[in-house]
Amino acid sequence: MITLSSDFGAPYPAAMKGVILQRVDTRLVDVSHEFPRQDVRSAAFWLREVLPWFPPAVHLVVVDPGVGTDRRALVVRAGDHALVGPDNGVLLPAARALATAASANGDAAGGDGPVEVFEYAYGTPSSNTFHGRDVFAPAAAAVHGIGVDDLDAADRLTRTDGFEAVTFPDPSVDETGAEGEVLVVDGFGNVVTNVPGEVLADHVGEQTAVNGTEVPVVRAYAECEPGQRLVTVGSHGNVELAVNQGRGDDAFGLGPGQTVQLGW
Amino acid sequence: MITLSSDFGAPYPAAMKGVILQRVDTRLVDVSHEFPRQDVRSAAFWLREVLPWFPPAVHLVVVDPGVGTDRRALVVRAGDHALVGPDNGVLLPAARALATAASANGDAAGGDGPVEVFEYAYGTPSSNTFHGRDVFAPAAAAVHGIGVDDLDAADRLTRTDGFEAVTFPDPSVDETGAEGEVLVVDGFGNVVTNVPGEVLADHVGEQTAVNGTEVPVVRAYAECEPGQRLVTVGSHGNVELAVNQGRGDDAFGLGPGQTVQLGW
Amino acid sequence: MITLSSDFGAPYPAAMKGVILQRVDTRLVDVSHEFPRQDVRSAAFWLREVLPWFPPAVHLVVVDPGVGTDRRALVVRAGDHALVGPDNGVLLPAARALATAASANGDAAGGDGPVEVFEYAYGTPSSNTFHGRDVFAPAAAAVHGIGVDDLDAADRLTRTDGFEAVTFPDPSVDETGAEGEVLVVDGFGNVVTNVPGEVLADHVGEQTAVNGTEVPVVRAYAECEPGQRLVTVGSHGNVELAVNQGRGDDAFGLGPGQTVQLGW
Repeated sequence: MITLSSDFGAPYPAAMKGVILQRVDTRLVDVSHEFPRQDVRSAAFWLREVLPWFPPAVHLVVVDPGVGTDRRALVVRAGDHALVGPDNGVLLPAARALATAASANGDAAGGDGPVEVFEYAYGTPSSNTFHGRDVFAPAAAAVHGIGVDDLDAADRLTRTDGFEAVTFPDPSVDETGAEGEVLVVDGFGNVVTNVPGEVLADHVGEQTAVNGTEVPVVRAYAECEPGQRLVTVGSHGNVELAVNQGRGDDAFGLGPGQTVQLGW
Repeated sequence: MITLSSDFGAPYPAAMKGVILQRVDTRLVDVSHEFPRQDVRSAAFWLREVLPWFPPAVHLVVVDPGVGTDRRALVVRAGDHALVGPDNGVLLPAARALATAASANGDAAGGDGPVEVFEYAYGTPSSNTFHGRDVFAPAAAAVHGIGVDDLDAADRLTRTDGFEAVTFPDPSVDETGAEGEVLVVDGFGNVVTNVPGEVLADHVGEQTAVNGTEVPVVRAYAECEPGQRLVTVGSHGNVELAVNQGRGDDAFGLGPGQTVQLGW
Repeated sequence: MITLSSDFGAPYPAAMKGVILQRVDTRLVDVSHEFPRQDVRSAAFWLREVLPWFPPAVHLVVVDPGVGTDRRALVVRAGDHALVGPDNGVLLPAARALATAASANGDAAGGDGPVEVFEYAYGTPSSNTFHGRDVFAPAAAAVHGIGVDDLDAADRLTRTDGFEAVTFPDPSVDETGAEGEVLVVDGFGNVVTNVPGEVLADHVGEQTAVNGTEVPVVRAYAECEPGQRLVTVGSHGNVELAVNQGRGDDAFGLGPGQTVQLGW
């Protein structure tokens, strides 16, 4: 199985699929081609949330503002999974989540499920603007053909310790509240923060101050009236600011990178 | 085969696919993940129009404004098909259409192709905001594994007679015209009404009054000039208000739920 | 393998998939269903760029402003590929690119890889507004079943020499510059012209005048600062006007059909 993720919209992902299907016959699954354009950080977050739900696969990821420059191509092994994409940090949060999951299940060869990073040597691609088609899709097909267990023996792969990695900031939490930041806004307009959902555990049914405004803490969106603002724990386990049947980003006036203060 | 429908956009459907592919190895087909958000009624209409074109399948449907509340999860058997989703009415129009089609083909065990509704008992899901991933995708995989014919023996399924069902209003038709309402607007801006297309049969080539304005009745969009308003029979068999190579919703100023009066 | 392309958005393509899967069991790959609506020319361009990356397949293409009129349905054979769609020109650029590629690889039976065009005879479809579902999807399934090599023996197919074909204008190029036009704008806002990329070969690192304004010629987007305008060679091999991490169409004020003058 090969999954595909990009910020390409359409029809560019189809060219990647054609390139892969010229080389291997396997299931292809789209994760998303609608990641915010050139936003490595958002893609890294979403991949960390989504890829661990998949069975072992090769994950092709192309959110690549440095396309055509000398940034490297990477293959990252994480448990039974491999991730293929540019060396700009986008692969690492998902890889670490996959490795941790593998380790927790006792599936990781290395015991604690560390990631292993390889540089993928590519020649001169036929374009400088579409390495998804010309570099990464062939690489993903090659990795699928080689097999995740045999990457060490692959001609074009060399282990490397130096690579980019997106990291997400830690929130600060104490008994009076929490301060964190917005990581992403989803398609519903739900505002996903970096504050762990556990901080809400003792406050469900109460009000909390979100950047100074009182909002109810609920378990489910529909515990509020349509159009009402709320705070809840999202499916990623973090505090999420939302509006029942509406857009939290508009109501709270918040977007990625902005500060969120919760107090009780 | 499992089809997937939701109002999720991207990348949430990919998490559902991962969950399914952890459990079963079958073809996955997206119906749409762009249904209007939280709009159970629109999704119910589109599923009724689209699902009957499929061969026997399990249809996973998640348009679910009540996620995380105590609304139930349902499995509906209709001919050789099963539908899996929330008990908010979204499944029923499609299920009934599938059952009728099965009956018409002589495929339905029961003769007249009634639907059979089961409650699906789920434990405590890992989130209250993403039952697509945590409840319905596992349920769809389970139903696929059990097989549509063997649902009665499934542990988590219990027959139920009480369930929600979306219904669509009946239009009024007489020899002077018809009055109905807009059911949905499609991506082209075509305005789909609940008035049966047969009312236009004797009027093709004539003008009809649509909410008081004269518009030609045509067989095909391109029988009018680009930009011109028209009335025709859509692919769902209903009267449709459109603009050749333009948007009917803008030109007619109409959206879901609004009244449409046709007169001749 | 059957690929699907349209301007349908969602959920209409799912009905086509259902119709196909009722008839054949093969891999389905979406090329795009987001082609600009009723824009035969844009779709023809994108298909020419994308389909040659695929292994042998049947390519179903429905961008069809003449749906329901007496425009014909075509099947075009190109090397080991077949294309199925309306006789409005949309198929031909891709078909010719596929035939040329086949010929270059020595794969084309005919030596020089010409396209062969068949009219597909269809009865009275069940709708006049959705031939994708009622005419072309069944045709694509039938062509897949017959096999690309055996189209001559198919009941509903008759060779034809008269058919529509989209063509793209030739640019004018001399030692002082080039004049061409915008073919399409992609989802990133990159402005794709008909001027061959070779004209930039001797000018990388220099400035060029684009409609009178000086802009750097670069190999990769990221050679400029974010937000800066640039000229480069796109993945299609043509001159492309872009903004690093921004939208070239907005910055240059250009869209399909408009004139682009390059000078040095």
